[in-house]
Amino acid sequence: MVGSGVEVQSTMSINGSLSNGKSAEQLAVSDVESFDPATVVPEPLPPVVDSNGEEVVKPREIVLGKNVHTTCLEVTEPDADDESTGDKDAYMASVLARYRKTLLERTQHHLGYPYNLDFDYGALGQLQHFSINNLGDPFIESNYGVHSRQFEVGVLDWFARLWEIEKDDYWGYITNCGTEGNLHGILVGREVFPDGVLYASKESHYSVFKAARMYRMDCEKVGTLVTGEIDCTDFKTKLLLHKDKPAIINVNIGTTVKGAVDDLDLVIQTLVENGFSHDRFYIHCDGALFGLMMPFVKKAPKVSFKKPIGSVSVSGHKFVGCPMPCGIQITRLRHINALSRNVEYLASRDATIMGSRNGHAPIFLWYTLNRKGYKGFQKEVQKCLRNAHYLKDRLREAGISAMLNELSSTVVFERPRDEEFVRMWQLACEGNMAHIVVMPNVTVEKLDYFLNELAKGRAIWYKDGKEQPPCLAVDVGIENCSCAVHK
Amino acid sequence: MVGSGVEVQSTMSINGSLSNGKSAEQLAVSDVESFDPATVVPEPLPPVVDSNGEEVVKPREIVLGKNVHTTCLEVTEPDADDESTGDKDAYMASVLARYRKTLLERTQHHLGYPYNLDFDYGALGQLQHFSINNLGDPFIESNYGVHSRQFEVGVLDWFARLWEIEKDDYWGYITNCGTEGNLHGILVGREVFPDGVLYASKESHYSVFKAARMYRMDCEKVGTLVTGEIDCTDFKTKLLLHKDKPAIINVNIGTTVKGAVDDLDLVIQTLVENGFSHDRFYIHCDGALFGLMMPFVKKAPKVSFKKPIGSVSVSGHKFVGCPMPCGIQITRLRHINALSRNVEYLASRDATIMGSRNGHAPIFLWYTLNRKGYKGFQKEVQKCLRNAHYLKDRLREAGISAMLNELSSTVVFERPRDEEFVRMWQLACEGNMAHIVVMPNVTVEKLDYFLNELAKGRAIWYKDGKEQPPCLAVDVGIENCSCAVHK
Repeated sequence: MVGSGVEVQSTMSINGSLSNGKSAEQLAVSDVESFDPATVVPEPLPPVVDSNGEEVVKPREIVLGKNVHTTCLEVTEPDADDESTGDKDAYMASVLARYRKTLLERTQHHLGYPYNLDFDYGALGQLQHFSINNLGDPFIESNYGVHSRQFEVGVLDWFARLWEIEKDDYWGYITNCGTEGNLHGILVGREVFPDGVLYASKESHYSVFKAARMYRMDCEKVGTLVTGEIDCTDFKTKLLLHKDKPAIINVNIGTTVKGAVDDLDLVIQTLVENGFSHDRFYIHCDGALFGLMMPFVKKAPKVSFKKPIGSVSVSGHKFVGCPMPCGIQITRLRHINALSRNVEYLASRDATIMGSRNGHAPIFLWYTLNRKGYKGFQKEVQKCLRNAHYLKDRLREAGISAMLNELSSTVVFERPRDEEFVRMWQLACEGNMAHIVVMPNVTVEKLDYFLNELAKGRAIWYKDGKEQPPCLAVDVGIENCSCAVHK
Repeated sequence: MVGSGVEVQSTMSINGSLSNGKSAEQLAVSDVESFDPATVVPEPLPPVVDSNGEEVVKPREIVLGKNVHTTCLEVTEPDADDESTGDKDAYMASVLARYRKTLLERTQHHLGYPYNLDFDYGALGQLQHFSINNLGDPFIESNYGVHSRQFEVGVLDWFARLWEIEKDDYWGYITNCGTEGNLHGILVGREVFPDGVLYASKESHYSVFKAARMYRMDCEKVGTLVTGEIDCTDFKTKLLLHKDKPAIINVNIGTTVKGAVDDLDLVIQTLVENGFSHDRFYIHCDGALFGLMMPFVKKAPKVSFKKPIGSVSVSGHKFVGCPMPCGIQITRLRHINALSRNVEYLASRDATIMGSRNGHAPIFLWYTLNRKGYKGFQKEVQKCLRNAHYLKDRLREAGISAMLNELSSTVVFERPRDEEFVRMWQLACEGNMAHIVVMPNVTVEKLDYFLNELAKGRAIWYKDGKEQPPCLAVDVGIENCSCAVHK
């Protein structure tokens, strides 16, 4: 290939007879002399590599969970007469209709993941037909015009106000998910302190430890209390191991499993008391789960840029209820210069991780924030906390181990014995624990239905007394455990 | 907060009177005794941090491009009577209607970015209302049931066949964009060769160099030919500087600016001839732009896993025409074990970068691949190449510097003098070059309209002869330059 582009240029004749009036079809026949139609391969269908249709003998190496390769919906080549018969269109329509039914049923039976599935975005259907892409920095227009930066910046300003940072002092963007927020926050911390050590409680989201590995950072896992919060006594011990290096700390505003909220103020106090002045640490707040709920809970530790924190992230598809994964990332503008570089191609500085970014998500977020407002979210938070307490109370009543942290809507309880039951209700599990994250779409009716099913299940699983429900004392504390020993 | 969750548990009374028959409303009034409604803050509206409405005196530090902070669509708190008056709904509807008009106009005048804006996904509108999320590995079901893995795996199988790797030998996933594909491919390379040196031509996408910085890898920029292809003579020189370390190479299947295709076979030959056996290098093919076009071009270097390559990525929102940024990433299954770790929380191994992944994108891709098939893409490739040749010929006819690589539909030409013209047509520019990427939605009619506008513009910009069109000899070679000196 080397040099071929140039060679081709020099051997091409320029056809002076081309004019504006020709259609593409006319053109195809004869006009473009320099184009050789034979450059396209005659048979576009690649040979089948695998022995299609036969049973696959060699197993894939993947062992966890259920390998879905066999249940996949194959892409098939259209037949020559598909357009006239409409067979393929009919086939695809039937696949989609069946899929829609599954989605309805699965959405109905969903309790384990912190996604608010209660939304109505009918007004936005008209925008699905555009390829909206917010390339690069949201605050600098690129030359690509089909974007939604004006919505994105509106959403970012709303969160900046929530987290108390002035418009001119913050920088942020709408990410693809909570993980991207953590990857970005920790990367900014590392760029500010290249030799910093990352500290995160062992109950932090796995993306935090993934970041440490990706970025080749030293990382200290810090112990937790039974609630799931970071144990600041252990944090102090770990800090003193690396007194000479700056600290980068991931603070959880709602851990993944127990919904625990780390005590931001105590983390800052621990840092300062152990000789880490404000210019020697960077705090990233992972608010993926409760970052938007905490501001509305009275006794919650306040997440605010008036405190010495570096960045905050929150997911947009969780409490807010956006139909696609996304998140909001806010940091201090002055940190961004450490990360950014000029990229003339886009006429845009690139301080984001992803470059091309989904332009639909900001519009969904803008639409929801406008409709609900701070007051609407307050109401939903109240409802979630109330329903979470209801669930916890009913579980304890029924003699089932359960815990609910004060600032949380995540109810941790005994893992149901039957994995089919777990899958049916889409519960997230860890060891002997399962949890339900009470989101705005989780009603008391739905919880009652679930509780009845659980009671029925337990009556079967434990009927002859041979099997006992698991002990959760280690996981949630003796006072929350209802096992045979602790009840 | 430390320990508060547990304390709360122990002071809460369990209310035995709760029963199934109560509605959420009844519940709100009195039933859940353990829930203290005062836990929610009375005034949810955060104080305004910035001086809203006043002109901002302190400028943001951002200098490049146009800061869009001032044109943002503010999110406003709903008024108490909004529901009865419908004012807010009406306001939002008008914003969206105006925005839709802008999108239509901007989509119409778009030539510079490689996005196929020609699609019809009406049949998929019914799925917008679901929060579809493909958490973690596409081949292992997580407990979250509202996913589209069956579509995703179908799409991946299609690409595996295209790139000649058996179903049981590959691993892959649908990414959020081309950048994520590069970040993943290079990360896999680094995990396979922790002390490997990254080599990439200087015309590689900026995400490749971003990856080197993120991952703390040694990186060598390799020179390019005037076509934009990697210069394998320089590659050899750079390789010999690090003979003792494994090589990780980014090979471009279509560079960002010139649409140049690196000669994969020559890259492999250079490696082998200089002492790098197959077990000492990892090649990632960045096919973001042309990864789906090359297989249908006869003389193109074939991207195939039958060659010693490690991974290939392609964008889904470019030639395929998905309305949201996404990409396809395929690598060898055996490499993935180096990257993956078990994450019990999701009951899913996590070898992806993002964790939460947009579940709508796979359905759009599946739908398009099914409708077009390999043959449909072949036709579109032919049309794009033909129209690109037409554009290049017309430009040269008009005495305008222009280059088109043989395997490419990217036409590079003289940067229009007027920045408003550049923005109007959304042209991507670098130095004296602008380019148009001829995608399936770019018709001859649209090109003619553009060419006429460009001719009109040039007649004004260069009318008195004081200003001359720029020289592009350095950028595209003397034979393609039509400046005053070289014409």
